[in-house]
Formats: sequence, C-alpha cells, structure tokens
Amino acid sequence: MSELRRDPILGRWVIISSDRAGRPLDFRPARETWTGGGFCPFCAGNEYTTPSELLAYRPDGSPPDSPGWDLRVVPNKFPALRREGEPEQSGEILYQTMSGIGAHEVIIEAPGHDQTLASLPADSVERVLKAYASRLLDLKKDPRLEYVIVFKNHGPSAGATLEHTHSQLIALPIVPTRVLAEMEGALSHRQSTGECIFCDIIHRELRHGARIVADNEHFTVLCPFASPYAFETWILPKKHTPRFESSAEHFPALAAILSDLLRRINAVLGKPDYNFVIHTAPLHENNVDHYHWHLELIPKLNRVAGFEWGSSFFINPTPPEEAASFLREAGQEG
Amino acid sequence: MSELRRDPILGRWVIISSDRAGRPLDFRPARETWTGGGFCPFCAGNEYTTPSELLAYRPDGSPPDSPGWDLRVVPNKFPALRREGEPEQSGEILYQTMSGIGAHEVIIEAPGHDQTLASLPADSVERVLKAYASRLLDLKKDPRLEYVIVFKNHGPSAGATLEHTHSQLIALPIVPTRVLAEMEGALSHRQSTGECIFCDIIHRELRHGARIVADNEHFTVLCPFASPYAFETWILPKKHTPRFESSAEHFPALAAILSDLLRRINAVLGKPDYNFVIHTAPLHENNVDHYHWHLELIPKLNRVAGFEWGSSFFINPTPPEEAASFLREAGQEG
Repeated sequence: MSELRRDPILGRWVIISSDRAGRPLDFRPARETWTGGGFCPFCAGNEYTTPSELLAYRPDGSPPDSPGWDLRVVPNKFPALRREGEPEQSGEILYQTMSGIGAHEVIIEAPGHDQTLASLPADSVERVLKAYASRLLDLKKDPRLEYVIVFKNHGPSAGATLEHTHSQLIALPIVPTRVLAEMEGALSHRQSTGECIFCDIIHRELRHGARIVADNEHFTVLCPFASPYAFETWILPKKHTPRFESSAEHFPALAAILSDLLRRINAVLGKPDYNFVIHTAPLHENNVDHYHWHLELIPKLNRVAGFEWGSSFFINPTPPEEAASFLREAGQEG
Repeated sequence: MSELRRDPILGRWVIISSDRAGRPLDFRPARETWTGGGFCPFCAGNEYTTPSELLAYRPDGSPPDSPGWDLRVVPNKFPALRREGEPEQSGEILYQTMSGIGAHEVIIEAPGHDQTLASLPADSVERVLKAYASRLLDLKKDPRLEYVIVFKNHGPSAGATLEHTHSQLIALPIVPTRVLAEMEGALSHRQSTGECIFCDIIHRELRHGARIVADNEHFTVLCPFASPYAFETWILPKKHTPRFESSAEHFPALAAILSDLLRRINAVLGKPDYNFVIHTAPLHENNVDHYHWHLELIPKLNRVAGFEWGSSFFINPTPPEEAASFLREAGQEG
C-alpha cells in the first residue's frame, strides 16, 4: 500500500510506496566507474595546477600551494560564478537578470587520492567542517553575497567530475528559493505554536524512535517522515542553532556522527554515490531565530524521472521507517 | 560570463553559464542501452500480460485486450497509487498523511516495438494526444481526484523501465506544489497587469525571436528565458487556454509541432533520452482563467547534482538563446 505524506516544513506531499521495489538490494547501483585516471590536480604535489589556495591546513611556515598540507580550499577552475564586479540587476518586469557575481570554491578534504570522507579519521573530518565554517565566515564579509551553499557530490552519478575526495561551496547574490521556503515554513510554525519546527521534529522522532538512525550528545540522525528520496537522511543539531558556523564547538561530535552515518550508508547500500548539502540561515538576515541548520544527505539510488521534476511531486519507494531500520542495524554489526 | 536570471512565473533564480561546456557536442549522452530485451508486455499479441485496457483505439467490433489496436491505455501493473478506497486524511499537526488513492495508467502509443513517438506519423501522435484528453476527462468524473499529471519518460536514463514507446499518467488526490506555485505566479501577474503571464511571454518571445524554436498557427515552441535545464523546451498554445483538454480542436497542429520538436531534438542532440510533462489546471478548480496549459520537455543531458536538489537552485550550462538557435537551424536542414 502507498501513503501520501505531507512535508511539515515545505508543505509538499510525497508518495511513500511500499509496494514497489525499495529494499537495499533492489537498487541497481547508479554508480559509474571513473574513467581516465592518470593525472589528478587535487593530489599532493600537483598544487601548481589549481588556482592559488584561499585556505589551507598545513605545517606552520610551509609556503602556500606547496605540498605537506592536510586540507586545501581553492577557487573552482571552472566557476559557475565569479567574485569580480558589482551585482547589477536589470529592472525589467517580466525578465529580471543579475550579473553572475559570487564564488565557487573547492574544499580538497585530504591529500591522498585513495581517501574518502568515509575513510578519513575523525580529526580529518572535523578539519573539513572547520574549513566550511571558516570559508562561510570569510565570505560573509562580502556584502554582495547573500547565501553560501556548502555541498558534496561524491561519485560521478552524483555529479562529481573528479574522483579525489572534495566538497564545494557556491556563494550567491540571492537566497535560493528552497531556503526561503524552509524559512517560511519554520516561521509559520513558530508563529502558530511558539516553537521551532525542527526542534519539535527532533523531540518527536526521539520519542517515537522508528525513523532515528543514530544520535549522540549533540546531534540526531534521522530519515525524515516525508522524504522524497529513498534513504534520505538528515543530521540535526539538538541545540537550537540557526547557523552552521555557530555549532563550531560541537564539530567533534558532528564529525563523529557524520563519519558514522557515511559508514552505515556504505554498509547498507554498497558504497553508493551520494550528495549532501548544508542548510543554514542566509548570511545577512537578522531575524532567523525560527530556522535550525541541518545537513541533508541523499544516496544516489533511484532516478528522478519525468513525473518528479515536472510536478515537484516525488515517489519514494522506501518508507523512511524501513530505511532508518536498515541504517540503525548496520551500526550494530560493528 | 555567467548571468543570474529570474523565472518570471516561479520567482526562482537560475545561473545561466556560458563559460562551462554546454554545446550539443559537449554532452556525453546520458543514454544507457536497454538490457534484457526478449519479451515485451506492450507489444501487439501480448495484451493478456497487461491489466485490462481502460481505453483503446482499435477496429470497430474487435474485442478488448485483443490484437489489432493502434493505441491502448492500461492500468500500470505496479501502480504508485490505486483507485480503491476513500481518501482518508490524518488530522495531525506535524505529520499529515492521506491514503494512497489515485490512478497510475500507461498509454501504449503504438503496437510496434521499433516505433518511437518521434518516428510515428502525425495522425498517430494526434491519437496519443486524444487519449491523454480522453483519460483526463474520464478521471475528472472522480471527485476524489484533484489533479492528473500526464508525462512521458523516454529512455532508461529518463526513468523509463520499458523500451516500448509509452506515456504515463498519475492521478492524485491533491494538487502538486509545483502546479500551485505556477498558478500563484500567474495569478499575481494577472492581478498586477490584468494579463496572462504565459500570453505575455509568448508575445514577447515572438517579437524578440531569439528563444523561439518553431511556431505554427496555434502553437509556439520556445526555450524559456530562465530554463534550469540545458535545451529545456516548452510548447504553448497561442490561444489562452487553461486546460489541455480544451485545446482538442487544435490537436492536429499540436501533433505536428510536437513531432517537429522531437525530430529537432534528435537531430541536434543525437536521440537523447527525454521527459515531458503536460502542465494543466487542476481538475475541479473553477477559478483558473489566469492559468495557461503548456508542455515542458527536457532532454536528459546534464546531471542534477548536489547543489541543484539541495537548494532548488540550478546551473544551466547552455543559454536558452543558443539552445533555441541550434534547434531552429536543425529544422532548416530538412
């Protein structure tokens, strides 16, 4: 039987189907193999092939763009947006445009080509989170920028064009529609109940248990009630915090639970490609206390077909309770 | 240089990038080859393997579910939603659910396995459009249903699971968020200008010309100003019409221009997989005069990566003016 479920934040309905194939072994891996190989611009020793680094964690005194680093952040060589110029907006009624001001950066998470975020030790994952926060705080100084999307595409079917483990960020002169919709949903809940909708969801899920994957002192991992994607999983800070960078004191706990989640996903789904995106409050908005930052992770399993993009209406073949149960049990095995 | 463009209907911003690879030859085909082969439940002679037909165009007097037909509509054997039961909604504040009432049907467009919608003669394409309208009108009689999404997934990377040429429809007990957002954008334009936003777009595009692919007496084909996807193309009726089925008298012209568009897409992009979705007004809504039905087609070329789904913020590597120019010229060659 299928059920329709309404996303409590976005108001979007999703079909949760348990008639259709949606167990872990039913998914043909969307994974493609990397072709090419050979030269990697992100490997230690090849620093000269990337634009100059914006941030690096490297031994004191070692020169920029030289080997020996643990993590580097560099501008994307083929950026979707550039930092130069002023944001100019055309005043037309029907067709508004804005110049492509922004930033597009790559966070090279580790020097070795064989490493993955899932295989990195906890302190290296923590370093990645620190780099995200550091770049967010730096880009916030630029008044032309309104939002920074921090995301990771792991594997070719998830949109990665290079194999070497990395994340990206794109800074924008506008706030994306999706973030505005989440903020609006959260504000409306705050106005009608006085509470944060994300906090309410966390409390309810922890009481209920069926959609919880893992939790530690500071973070909860769950499969959302109305997930559009199979095995979609969120990490939420337990303490109400609108902005990702404000959780810096809990990055050790976040690194631990993110590593744990990636290993569970790998164990249950056979190392799938995946995407994650950090959802955080807009850079310069002051009234954001109703928002609650979180990380959304989606393994690349089922395809988005015509029905989905044409309607923003999704069919999820794996009930989130089942997905959570598989991911919970994976942890218990070791 | 990149440019940000605002979708005039949805208010969503899109990055239109001309720095990144986005010419027809730059796209690796997302096309996968069909595996399996062998038995096809949609082929003439195999009618007994599908659920009983709901509609067929077949010689007078020939029995249902027998060979000799030109087109059949059958229930999907693995439906996302089912017709039985009453729509029951749970009254919870945070988590609302509804029983999975609806319909999921397959329009088998032609009896032969080698045919495609692009290769069918004009009268067969017209028959497909008539079948869509006929099923829409029939499903409209069911007061439990609020919306019918008519769509086509062509090819495995576009989500098709069978090779034999077919479209689908899903009838829903709710109106999808995307349709609501389009109706809202159109209503707001109507209220501020007194005009239909789709009519305004058609007039403006025909005057401007750069994003027009083709047009005939009754329909215009264009690449939208703020397309999120490379080579995204819309077909719009020139006469203001909120509902697809109300354009029935112009189905010959629609069949002609849809065939023409599919051939142009095939010529320019090397027979890519594609999706199309018919955007039409909700079944039982009376005040829909501000809406204007249209067909949205997206060839499956570039991937939707983490950035895109996490933010509803898209990067289109091919400016719609360039896409339209390629598609326009394809027609002139023959």
